[in-house]
Amino acid sequence: MQIIADNIQITNKKIEKALNDMDALPIQELASQCKNAGANAIDLNSGPLLKQAEKKMTFLVNVVQEIVDMPLLLDTSNPSAIHAGLKACNGNAIINGFSLEPAKLKNILPLAREFNCKIIGYLLDKNGMVPPNADERMRVAIQLYEEFSKMGLRTSQLVIDPVLVPIMWQDGPYQAMEVLDVIKTLPDLLGFPVQTIIGLSNLTTTNGPRTKKLIIEEAFLSMLAMAGLSMVLMNINHQRTTSIAMACNALIKGGIFSWEEILQETVPQ
Amino acid sequence: MQIIADNIQITNKKIEKALNDMDALPIQELASQCKNAGANAIDLNSGPLLKQAEKKMTFLVNVVQEIVDMPLLLDTSNPSAIHAGLKACNGNAIINGFSLEPAKLKNILPLAREFNCKIIGYLLDKNGMVPPNADERMRVAIQLYEEFSKMGLRTSQLVIDPVLVPIMWQDGPYQAMEVLDVIKTLPDLLGFPVQTIIGLSNLTTTNGPRTKKLIIEEAFLSMLAMAGLSMVLMNINHQRTTSIAMACNALIKGGIFSWEEILQETVPQ
Repeated sequence: MQIIADNIQITNKKIEKALNDMDALPIQELASQCKNAGANAIDLNSGPLLKQAEKKMTFLVNVVQEIVDMPLLLDTSNPSAIHAGLKACNGNAIINGFSLEPAKLKNILPLAREFNCKIIGYLLDKNGMVPPNADERMRVAIQLYEEFSKMGLRTSQLVIDPVLVPIMWQDGPYQAMEVLDVIKTLPDLLGFPVQTIIGLSNLTTTNGPRTKKLIIEEAFLSMLAMAGLSMVLMNINHQRTTSIAMACNALIKGGIFSWEEILQETVPQ
Repeated sequence: MQIIADNIQITNKKIEKALNDMDALPIQELASQCKNAGANAIDLNSGPLLKQAEKKMTFLVNVVQEIVDMPLLLDTSNPSAIHAGLKACNGNAIINGFSLEPAKLKNILPLAREFNCKIIGYLLDKNGMVPPNADERMRVAIQLYEEFSKMGLRTSQLVIDPVLVPIMWQDGPYQAMEVLDVIKTLPDLLGFPVQTIIGLSNLTTTNGPRTKKLIIEEAFLSMLAMAGLSMVLMNINHQRTTSIAMACNALIKGGIFSWEEILQETVPQ
């Protein structure tokens, strides 16, 4: 399970300001911090970038790849910004992402072919709504894969996000279990080793005590790892959660165990 | 998944002394602490009790059940001590436990029939050795269940411990994954909803940094819960680990989620 840092995002005021001012330093500091904390890839969530979209995404990709050499996820609904980011990216880029929403099928999915890169497909219906259970998510997965295949893309380019919902939703725990089921079942359903990604913080986006939110995320993260999740998108500053991810990897991958693979918890959360 | 406190054990110097001196207070304080920390049952690990076995186990059961009203696990290899404990116990008792070792089949297993109580069966071979993989554990489980059935016991009286080994053993992570597999497969193998128990601390009994040990235990605990484990035997003073167990239960049981079900982490570990 790869650890993708979700820390570089426009909802972070520092990042918002740095992107507006085209100020490399705060972004590079955060990118460097993500790397040191154990991230295997970094999500660049720029928001929709209503003004100077191409210029800003190009800037964002360039300043980050000056500092770290790892896959970058281009996380915006703006196709021009994604296009510019893909053009700027020297290494591996992952488009984040498309769904059955017509505008995304038309404007974002083709970019995966043009740039021969991975793309995240969300299991949302064509109106962008979350399916109510595992069966509906499977139905959406089949449709999504059909659209993906029509585009002539290779199975290894697809990363599916089954879409986690907040635990506090009326059927939150049920949906969380359904998501585990989807992760386990997708390879059989689609007939190839389907890569999957989950945005862990989605589980606890509603109000709740911080420590308990972290505990719920940690408990569910191990379940996701066990279900075979390929990538977890998470706050890399949650150091104990990151350590749990690494512990899961050490347990699951087998071989000789070493305590060194698991980060020491050195900061309070 | 029920949480069984493993705190009342003879390796705790305070408990050893209290048991030798027949001093109720330290034992009752610890029992009360186990209850307050969220234990659903308490394991009474008296050791082999070479002297005054019956008297001491009777004392132990009596002082604990004066304070808490929950199932007690009688954890000793001494059949006379188990017998005395079962006689003294007012509520539910669980014998901990038997295996294919001839002396245990002969002297401990019949006590489950005599007292009509649950008994833990360890998946160890007849020499008390740990099987090398899931297949061998399954083979032992079938033999164990045959012995159990011959005794005329009901399936609901059996609790199987698939035996976790230290992560630092050469094949530790592999064995841990095999144990998950056994927990998932036992109901299909034996044809009834097999109850299972795991001693979580077995995973980290070798040397290692304390924080990292806790992280490994927490990561694996969620996997155990997801695999369908019925009971986890653990140190109830590891408050964050207890919270993880409760978080797993809240996630798995479904229904409306409440933050109150998950203990607040109030003490450093």
